[in-house]
Amino acid sequence: MTVRQDTQQHLMPANQWAYEPRHMKWWGWGNEDVEFHANAHPGFWPYAKQVLEIQRDDFSRRAWKLESVELAEPCLDERFVNKLHSLLNPRQLSQQPKDRVIHAYGKGFRDLFRLRCGLATGAPDLVVYPESEQDVALTLRAAAERDVAVIPFGGGSNISGCLERMEARRMMVSLDMRRMRRVLAVDARSYTARIEAGIFGPDLEQQLGAQGMTLGHFPDSFLHSTLGGWIATRSAGMQSDKYGKIEDMVIALRMVTPEGVLATRTVPKSSSGIDVNHLCIGSEGTLGVITEATMRIHPRPERRVVPGYLFPEFEGGIEAIHECVRQECTPAMVRLNDPDKTALSMAFRPPATRVSQAIGKLFKTYLRVKGFALPRACLMLTAFEGSRDGVARRLRQVESIYRRFGAVGLGASSGKSFEATKYDFPHIRDFLLDRDVTTDVSETSTVWSNILPLYRETMSALRASILESGVRPWAGCHISHTYQSGASVYFTFGFKQQPGREMEQYLGVKRVAQQSFIDHGATLSHHHAVGTEHLPWLAADISPLGVRAVAALKRGLDPANIMNPGRLQPSANPFEDWMRLDHRADSQCGGTLSVVDFERMSRRKASGES
Amino acid sequence: MTVRQDTQQHLMPANQWAYEPRHMKWWGWGNEDVEFHANAHPGFWPYAKQVLEIQRDDFSRRAWKLESVELAEPCLDERFVNKLHSLLNPRQLSQQPKDRVIHAYGKGFRDLFRLRCGLATGAPDLVVYPESEQDVALTLRAAAERDVAVIPFGGGSNISGCLERMEARRMMVSLDMRRMRRVLAVDARSYTARIEAGIFGPDLEQQLGAQGMTLGHFPDSFLHSTLGGWIATRSAGMQSDKYGKIEDMVIALRMVTPEGVLATRTVPKSSSGIDVNHLCIGSEGTLGVITEATMRIHPRPERRVVPGYLFPEFEGGIEAIHECVRQECTPAMVRLNDPDKTALSMAFRPPATRVSQAIGKLFKTYLRVKGFALPRACLMLTAFEGSRDGVARRLRQVESIYRRFGAVGLGASSGKSFEATKYDFPHIRDFLLDRDVTTDVSETSTVWSNILPLYRETMSALRASILESGVRPWAGCHISHTYQSGASVYFTFGFKQQPGREMEQYLGVKRVAQQSFIDHGATLSHHHAVGTEHLPWLAADISPLGVRAVAALKRGLDPANIMNPGRLQPSANPFEDWMRLDHRADSQCGGTLSVVDFERMSRRKASGES
Repeated sequence: MTVRQDTQQHLMPANQWAYEPRHMKWWGWGNEDVEFHANAHPGFWPYAKQVLEIQRDDFSRRAWKLESVELAEPCLDERFVNKLHSLLNPRQLSQQPKDRVIHAYGKGFRDLFRLRCGLATGAPDLVVYPESEQDVALTLRAAAERDVAVIPFGGGSNISGCLERMEARRMMVSLDMRRMRRVLAVDARSYTARIEAGIFGPDLEQQLGAQGMTLGHFPDSFLHSTLGGWIATRSAGMQSDKYGKIEDMVIALRMVTPEGVLATRTVPKSSSGIDVNHLCIGSEGTLGVITEATMRIHPRPERRVVPGYLFPEFEGGIEAIHECVRQECTPAMVRLNDPDKTALSMAFRPPATRVSQAIGKLFKTYLRVKGFALPRACLMLTAFEGSRDGVARRLRQVESIYRRFGAVGLGASSGKSFEATKYDFPHIRDFLLDRDVTTDVSETSTVWSNILPLYRETMSALRASILESGVRPWAGCHISHTYQSGASVYFTFGFKQQPGREMEQYLGVKRVAQQSFIDHGATLSHHHAVGTEHLPWLAADISPLGVRAVAALKRGLDPANIMNPGRLQPSANPFEDWMRLDHRADSQCGGTLSVVDFERMSRRKASGES
Repeated sequence: MTVRQDTQQHLMPANQWAYEPRHMKWWGWGNEDVEFHANAHPGFWPYAKQVLEIQRDDFSRRAWKLESVELAEPCLDERFVNKLHSLLNPRQLSQQPKDRVIHAYGKGFRDLFRLRCGLATGAPDLVVYPESEQDVALTLRAAAERDVAVIPFGGGSNISGCLERMEARRMMVSLDMRRMRRVLAVDARSYTARIEAGIFGPDLEQQLGAQGMTLGHFPDSFLHSTLGGWIATRSAGMQSDKYGKIEDMVIALRMVTPEGVLATRTVPKSSSGIDVNHLCIGSEGTLGVITEATMRIHPRPERRVVPGYLFPEFEGGIEAIHECVRQECTPAMVRLNDPDKTALSMAFRPPATRVSQAIGKLFKTYLRVKGFALPRACLMLTAFEGSRDGVARRLRQVESIYRRFGAVGLGASSGKSFEATKYDFPHIRDFLLDRDVTTDVSETSTVWSNILPLYRETMSALRASILESGVRPWAGCHISHTYQSGASVYFTFGFKQQPGREMEQYLGVKRVAQQSFIDHGATLSHHHAVGTEHLPWLAADISPLGVRAVAALKRGLDPANIMNPGRLQPSANPFEDWMRLDHRADSQCGGTLSVVDFERMSRRKASGES
């Protein structure tokens, strides 16, 4: 007899793949009908122009034409394709150029820049949409038989280069998981839910919400990323302070590998040797495809408030967060901007009314009276969730600590504009790319005793490196995702592109940021994964033997090396390969794609049209 | 530049190995001068006699003579031994019979029973005491060169069979880590401490305590187990409800393998691919030797109270625990005994005074008035730790929940006798073994919705299986180590030995318990590790592919298979091997040890002397 643990089985009928989440626009972030509107944030572009020393305004709006994207002839293994046609439904297979371009990359700077230059060397030859675990298993088996490589694809939101092909000479399949989107069972007594891995954030929260539950995982990519993607990359949601990172939420999972299915039990904790859940979490598609997971869930909070605060300086804000950690009273979310990031946030405000302008002036006067030096002030956004009483108590305790460090409250709902726009920030990059501005992020985590040294060294290295490329630097930072031992430190940077040297500029700056993390005792990423962008630093982070351990796992579960080949395994010359974009795509399957070089990219871009 | 994260370096001078924690007695639990005294618990033996139907009292006290233990000639690889003598100090190597016998086993029933029969087939050929990570690395390198196997040894407290040799034909070294016992650095701001892995519980708490800190890890084996052992077996302390299991406490670690050192960074959280910390945690010595770990630590709690409660019935007690989980107000420790375990606890009380007898009578009357049916009553032990206010608030909240489920408080310090004796329970088994009674435990964890079904099925299966062996069964259970999704379920069982069938009896009962866990959706162990005792169920727990993944790791980090060979890898006939004790020790290195069979063991035991 096996006990039935799931109290609510199959909440959604099996054939709901008919509803399918939309793909993001291939040339940028978000749905095709959503973009950043300067009018809604009138202070933003003037701020950007000023800090980046941009003189002009005559940026023509580009019309992105799919037809002008250079796409190699698909490299097809006929026997494999025939096999898949016999195993799957025609609606599950696509060789359409648009599908191939959409699955070519994630949404990192390199990805978008290449697409905007009309290059899609990362494109797969075929896109497969499995609708069941069996579809995944059949596809992997067929692929292993024919030496076809497979890259699992969730929402395509990754910005670390986890999704593009790194080998040109083999047929490459993108396995798009979005049709596996059911919450299979909710055990309300045990606060667990068994969920298919291809489900997107909003869909997941809607299905759990119907049971009064939430996963509590809200990454910036929430609208456009999947459960499986979160697990494969060790994602963190904005409220990880309360709910933990995704790896803290996984109770059990199923991963289909070329060698079979790895499956774990729905138990709270175990002592059954090495925790094989953790062999799958963070595997970035290199071992297999996560098809479902049993996750910790929580009752929807009775109450949620999102107050903001202003601290006289960054150091005091950090001390205040640390004191909350010490007193074990952290909010559900904490996001402390440094002065530059604070200025950016202020520039991002919605249009001012006369009343709000007047209030703003008064408030500035009040701050000056309180002794604030405005250029040093730091915005802190927080969220509190839970029972009505619990929230009130925690809020009192936190505010009393914040006040000790000179904070001024901005009102209980001052975070509402953040709430309303919290998933919109990635759209800014598209807006800026349209205006020849490069922006990107590098984030890490470190222990409390190291946060300020790391912050100062990295900021100064970042600025110096941008300056070196001949333009004025902008860099800002926020502290978030707090833990007892430390927090995430998240850097954002931007600069005017030097025509013809855009990629060189980006690589130079990105490299400095990552190297600073490693040199100063931090990790290569807190929640953005390794991908290609952080691969050269992997051995320094987890030690060379750690890399070899991962390689050993790979040999065991994917002996033919068909799963996302090249990832998590630095080459012999990792930095050289990292600098030489598309280094492996020099001859695609006997096709015509030649070496991609920066100059050529730049010429294409300079021609003004993609 | 690398930042100095550790604010307090090297708290103890390097050569403090001179103080060396004592080994436990070879024939039982604890130090040689400590044992269970029936006088201190006058109700215990009468209770045991009654429930186990034991008529006699004439058990002679055995004098354990080391000389009568059968010990094979050591199987020595001369070149390896010479090499070690050139690399290490003579004080670091031992071939003394006592050292070999001490390192032959852990403290499981099988282990103690064999030793009491004068058998030490698990004994290593040489014991090595490393005093530095380099000593470990040199030993492993020399061992790999000469195909010598190495079994890491912490306190020797394991009860799942993690420590005995499973191969007879190779030289086998026990690597005893107890001299690596320094707290290397405390970062009080980040609540982390870097600690050598061979440190014992009391030593660790003393060194951290000097800094006002605690690890918060107090397993039943606390006095006799090490940090490295805890990590290698995924140990849980009594207060895991507050501090987590050991795997939740590891920030970074270093593990020496035959292929080099795997080392991770001191960062709170990361997204650097597969979490290689988790390749080492739970590896049970099969991949390498954990030499140090950076652990989460906590300020010593300002206040600690240990109240006890009596619930009218088990089901209500479970509901009360669940309600605390729901309201997010669990105590730091929760231990709910079922009625049988409650009766055992009552029998374990210290001698009654006239006053306590009178109070006891009054209390019983009070309980009857409150509607308690005493045979169904269940004892709940709890602990609350933290700030004065925090403890008071939590206590109020918990007690108000407990009262709703009919609980009666036993006073704020009623758990003090539990506190005073909490590390003594393992001594009872020696006392009972001396009286021809077998006792052992099997523990697991499961989700809340499955706790009662699992409890009922396992209790009835356990009792039936003991009864089948021809004697009266005793079995009890407690719920502890609570999580949002479930808890640990811990079974204790005991029965009168059938002369000549002692081992057969034990194996039959143990097998039924473990099989029940697997059949009813639970795990093979919550915190006792796999070892040999749970190995046959590993593939059912983590899936056959999970076992293969672990094997792949092993091939990568220990290609010559010198590290604790045979563990975490079920043989082709796991149950057969499990039943056939010492199945691999049929001819030791050309020596004289013959097959160990149950009858022979029993004959030796029946002769009354070891």
